[in-house]
Amino acid sequence: MEENKDMVRTELDELGEFGLIDQLTQEFPLRNASSLKGVGDDAAVINHEGYRTLVSVDLLVEGIHFDMTYTPLKHLGYKAAVVNFSDIYAMNGTPTQIVVGLGVSNRYSVEALDELYAGIRLACENYHVDLVGGDTTSSQSGLVISITVIGMAKEEDVVYRSGAKPNDLLCVSGDLGGAYMGLLILEREKAEYLANPNMQPQLQGFDYVLERQLKPEARKDIVARFKELDIKPTSMIDISDGLASEVLHLCKESGVGCQLYEGKIPQDPSTVKIAKDFQIVPSVAALSGGEDYELLFTVDQKEYEKIQKMAEDVTVIGYMTADKGISELITPDNHVIPLKAQGWNHFDRSQK
Amino acid sequence: MEENKDMVRTELDELGEFGLIDQLTQEFPLRNASSLKGVGDDAAVINHEGYRTLVSVDLLVEGIHFDMTYTPLKHLGYKAAVVNFSDIYAMNGTPTQIVVGLGVSNRYSVEALDELYAGIRLACENYHVDLVGGDTTSSQSGLVISITVIGMAKEEDVVYRSGAKPNDLLCVSGDLGGAYMGLLILEREKAEYLANPNMQPQLQGFDYVLERQLKPEARKDIVARFKELDIKPTSMIDISDGLASEVLHLCKESGVGCQLYEGKIPQDPSTVKIAKDFQIVPSVAALSGGEDYELLFTVDQKEYEKIQKMAEDVTVIGYMTADKGISELITPDNHVIPLKAQGWNHFDRSQK
Repeated sequence: MEENKDMVRTELDELGEFGLIDQLTQEFPLRNASSLKGVGDDAAVINHEGYRTLVSVDLLVEGIHFDMTYTPLKHLGYKAAVVNFSDIYAMNGTPTQIVVGLGVSNRYSVEALDELYAGIRLACENYHVDLVGGDTTSSQSGLVISITVIGMAKEEDVVYRSGAKPNDLLCVSGDLGGAYMGLLILEREKAEYLANPNMQPQLQGFDYVLERQLKPEARKDIVARFKELDIKPTSMIDISDGLASEVLHLCKESGVGCQLYEGKIPQDPSTVKIAKDFQIVPSVAALSGGEDYELLFTVDQKEYEKIQKMAEDVTVIGYMTADKGISELITPDNHVIPLKAQGWNHFDRSQK
Repeated sequence: MEENKDMVRTELDELGEFGLIDQLTQEFPLRNASSLKGVGDDAAVINHEGYRTLVSVDLLVEGIHFDMTYTPLKHLGYKAAVVNFSDIYAMNGTPTQIVVGLGVSNRYSVEALDELYAGIRLACENYHVDLVGGDTTSSQSGLVISITVIGMAKEEDVVYRSGAKPNDLLCVSGDLGGAYMGLLILEREKAEYLANPNMQPQLQGFDYVLERQLKPEARKDIVARFKELDIKPTSMIDISDGLASEVLHLCKESGVGCQLYEGKIPQDPSTVKIAKDFQIVPSVAALSGGEDYELLFTVDQKEYEKIQKMAEDVTVIGYMTADKGISELITPDNHVIPLKAQGWNHFDRSQK
């Protein structure tokens, strides 16, 4: 399932725990001067002299966050790393190191884990991040990936969720809803494959949304542009659960309200088309879909001209208000409806 | 199983992901000045100005690292945190923050997770560590706990595995083999309970080894004494896999050999008695048993007098040699046998 059957298969116990760690981590050169000691001691040693250290963890569980029937292991490794980097960019920081905890059953071969690590390695290369430690152990069921990312930012650069002020502009990078459409396409093809295993999956023409789902990127470029243009957002969060949920986080943490214009939500034409094919209102895919890993942020109105210079990558979708607890969606025909979070709730049994 | 049946049971989906995180993390005050921002943003923010940042991760998987039939959840939370702190002490540092990744199935109630977090909270109190972030998600099978610990040490204080020199004294804190004997007692009583569910477990008289297994402590006190006595070990590691495996790690990383005196290995009388009852050579429980979380370290011979001042807590068990690759065990009757690691290998199917 997770590999070509003709390929070599090496069982995990042929290497043992330390052999496996050596095998998986051998091709991870240290790229950051701050990574003083990587894999191979009780703890990694990092020098963030002059900077704040940022830390975030994500746990990915097979069958909950990914489905091995349609997730290539290399993509999975890449995505697991990148979604963590996204948390550091959302603080206006730079990811510098990761430690990886891996729980894996005997169902996986060494070659399969090599694929997973090839994806993690590519993400580390693309984002200039060092793998500096980890813990690899067995699991009685599926694959569990825990990635903790360490990042850094100058004290004065750190952006929290809590700094939005009334009248600040609410902005978002890129476009939204694509990752969720990609998931729906993959789920549909899986259902058809299970019903008829001889059928070939129909994935042509869906490249954009599939890439958004399977190989998302974190918005390193946006944070770099903030520095170039000397913009410091007043608050920021990355979009993992869906736009509505993230807007409500910013409002709650900042003690403000907001007016969000549904018609301003940026969406790719292919996302809109596929949503319609699934009979989903396209904006709902953006508001509730999740996993887009774009940056949602607020800036003072006086930064409007600078934000215009980022117009290719950033859209103003609303503004913050002094009405704490009141967050509203303004529809294209000027109806005002309360904004509600309907992001993923992994614990809700009714969704299973 | 994990709780009293008369107790209130709240299902996880009654709270939802964010409600659950709020519930579990509400009673974690921040104790360290370096913890600038804890739970509630995309990443925690830490100020380790003037210090090196140390990072380590451990992943604990139900059925592999713990057995819910005999592990109280509060103890499990305590141990999961403490074994991570131990990795930071093994670098001669001080743990300051943790982030907790939790994968949990619907089999667990909110009250059960409260118990787990009560253990994590107690460990944080006892070791003056802040919980600053986490990720809570569901799991299709058992409980998965991923703890990443962040610590700090002055640049000149960090002790690696790689600094041991020929003629350095090899020392260990506390006593060894107890945690493994505790595990054997628990496994025996579980087997008897499964054979006859009406039987009461016979755990009287085994308090010491059971506590070593279920509620280990990290040797914060030893690292504090090093500072008081102005001792800097040349190399150090904590004993998680068994003495033999850890000695070989120090030898390999430092490029030295060693002579380890079997008769010098410190063991509690109850460990020795129980080992004999199980027909196990007591020193083998220390060499291969694991999970004692004592500190194994080397010091220059000129520190011998200072080490004598720690004689109540520290035992000299051998010395390092220039014979790279040659690590030997000297038996009480002066036989010399090669030291071999037979610690746990979670991937070895023959042990299942």
